[in-house]
Amino acid sequence: MELKNLASSYKSELLDRVVPFWLNKSQDLEMGGYFTCLDREGNVFDTDKFIWLQARQVWLFSMLYNRVEKKPEWLDCAVQGGEFLKKQAHDGQYNWYFSLTREGKPLVQPYNIFSYTFAAMAFAQLGLATGNSEYADIALQTFNLILQKQENPKGKYNKAYPGTRNLKNFALPMIMCNLSLEMEHLLDAGQVEKTAQQVIHEVMDVFYRPDLGLIVENVNLDGSFSDTFDGRLLNPGHAIEAMWFIMDLGVRLKKPEIVSKALDIALQTLEHGWDKEHGGIFYFMDVKGHPTQQLEWDQKLWWVHIETLITMIKGYQLTGSQPALEAFQKVHDYTWTHFRDEEYPEWFGYLNRRGEVSLNLKGGKWKGCFHVPRGLYQVWQTLEKLG
Amino acid sequence: MELKNLASSYKSELLDRVVPFWLNKSQDLEMGGYFTCLDREGNVFDTDKFIWLQARQVWLFSMLYNRVEKKPEWLDCAVQGGEFLKKQAHDGQYNWYFSLTREGKPLVQPYNIFSYTFAAMAFAQLGLATGNSEYADIALQTFNLILQKQENPKGKYNKAYPGTRNLKNFALPMIMCNLSLEMEHLLDAGQVEKTAQQVIHEVMDVFYRPDLGLIVENVNLDGSFSDTFDGRLLNPGHAIEAMWFIMDLGVRLKKPEIVSKALDIALQTLEHGWDKEHGGIFYFMDVKGHPTQQLEWDQKLWWVHIETLITMIKGYQLTGSQPALEAFQKVHDYTWTHFRDEEYPEWFGYLNRRGEVSLNLKGGKWKGCFHVPRGLYQVWQTLEKLG
Repeated sequence: MELKNLASSYKSELLDRVVPFWLNKSQDLEMGGYFTCLDREGNVFDTDKFIWLQARQVWLFSMLYNRVEKKPEWLDCAVQGGEFLKKQAHDGQYNWYFSLTREGKPLVQPYNIFSYTFAAMAFAQLGLATGNSEYADIALQTFNLILQKQENPKGKYNKAYPGTRNLKNFALPMIMCNLSLEMEHLLDAGQVEKTAQQVIHEVMDVFYRPDLGLIVENVNLDGSFSDTFDGRLLNPGHAIEAMWFIMDLGVRLKKPEIVSKALDIALQTLEHGWDKEHGGIFYFMDVKGHPTQQLEWDQKLWWVHIETLITMIKGYQLTGSQPALEAFQKVHDYTWTHFRDEEYPEWFGYLNRRGEVSLNLKGGKWKGCFHVPRGLYQVWQTLEKLG
Repeated sequence: MELKNLASSYKSELLDRVVPFWLNKSQDLEMGGYFTCLDREGNVFDTDKFIWLQARQVWLFSMLYNRVEKKPEWLDCAVQGGEFLKKQAHDGQYNWYFSLTREGKPLVQPYNIFSYTFAAMAFAQLGLATGNSEYADIALQTFNLILQKQENPKGKYNKAYPGTRNLKNFALPMIMCNLSLEMEHLLDAGQVEKTAQQVIHEVMDVFYRPDLGLIVENVNLDGSFSDTFDGRLLNPGHAIEAMWFIMDLGVRLKKPEIVSKALDIALQTLEHGWDKEHGGIFYFMDVKGHPTQQLEWDQKLWWVHIETLITMIKGYQLTGSQPALEAFQKVHDYTWTHFRDEEYPEWFGYLNRRGEVSLNLKGGKWKGCFHVPRGLYQVWQTLEKLG
């Protein structure tokens, strides 16, 4: 594999195919924000607006503007989505709804903490892009709310009976790894260090189980293993994604031992999560090999594979690890062969176990303008550093 | 197909293989109630207790005792589960939790109305089996709570923002069709007639869309079609199952026109939901052919096929319809070939689109001692009537 040529493949896939798809097909220039439910060709098949995906697209176009090129249409796209979010997507106190109608009426209450984390990411990056302090302020206020909500993120929508089985979930500390760096320019140095140390500890010492060599999705509050459906749950893509967030923190904190530990965990997870029969990475697994509650456990999802590409190429670039390079090559081959759509831009999201397209969409409730372009950007940039 | 011989196949599958499986493998004689998370051979792989499934097993063993044979071990099995539910599964006011730990501590709050409906079914049938008026009283009090909660079944756990998009869901009126007959001996005649008329109207005039020839899962409060993910959702197995509940009501109310309308809808739904490529009935579909939100849309589930067998054989028995008999034969062949496990008792639950076993379990969070034995019983009994 010629890594130099590969950089330009990732770059042109990003800039010539994926970014134009979202720029041209998804913007709702009449009502504001973005359509994300787009069929294979990019036609809108549903107009509901999901805050995760609205915020992620604001972030993506702001990030491209900040880091790739000062294209006015990228900034316009980010700003119009940011304005829609600012006006419609919260309750006035920056409690972010989960979804809205096309015109911006709230559909689902602010029960989901990740609506908040992606809003904070979006407005931090949009503040950088525009220099508008109002956006930075929204990001900061939202970040502070997330810190307040960390202990019981679902609040009154939590259906768990208090006290019987108190689990903590991997997703929030995992996202906080990324968010603390995304917000760095808005936080004071002490706060970044403190958050970084805390989330690295949670991810690497609590959710990572040395006896298993794997990260579990949920543990008891005291950090012990819970032999329950939730406690046995593995999400290999989630764990591998977290490892590049951790590598970025390792670089930032100048701690190479964190980088190499993260790479080891990612390689172990990929080995465990790889489907030896049909190729690709499973979506969910049970750490004891029992049946999962998730019927879609054996499907192959776009984000799982794209995040793995980022982790492996970063691992290789930072450590020179040959197994990381080989893992990158294996997952690259699977991903470009199975998820990329040769006929129309943007990638498929949902394949069955055999790697056949199961849902013929380019965007939906959970797939938007995020993992594909962020992954292409990250891999492109990392490959360039190798050149 | 020799229908006489077939009756004995259904009977012996029920009494020689499926009922002994649950009787011997699932009872928790130490803590009470039932294990439902059972692997292919019947070994327990998780001990959480889900109220839907606990109550359904109480109902099933009470029903067998009431209608098939007065076997003491069946009654004992039902009573021990009923006692566990009575003591552990509600908050003291018959608000039924969703799940418990093995020892009976509440895990998930009483957010789910179907925990109530299955508890009412269970205690009504257990009251009949035992003559114990305490059980009948629990059934009645729970039934009254369901009526009170009908307008907003999720109560404070409802995450929909009030007023934006008020949909009503098919599942509750559909279950009420069945529950009103199950509870008949406890209600006064006026109430049964009233409930029956009301739910038949909801199912056949509101959720059934004559323009589509299909039943949708959700409609606007005024009964109009909602062009949204929820409004476009079809669940063919759910609709076909409801049609045998409606047929039973049609027989009870002596309205044969209701029976034949229900059969027509079921046949249309089967035609629409049948996978022409791989056989079997899809789990979810979008009425406009758009991608569904449900990743598991193309899987083949045991209950969908078993409920279809009941509907088709009842339809044939009640009307003599040749298409109903042909549909029964087609689904019988698929079901016995794909879901039945030749090596170990009880049937598989979850197949992929191609009909291969996707989750190697006999029971879990949603599959318990219910659809397989109820279906075998119903088909056996209906075939006997033909003889």
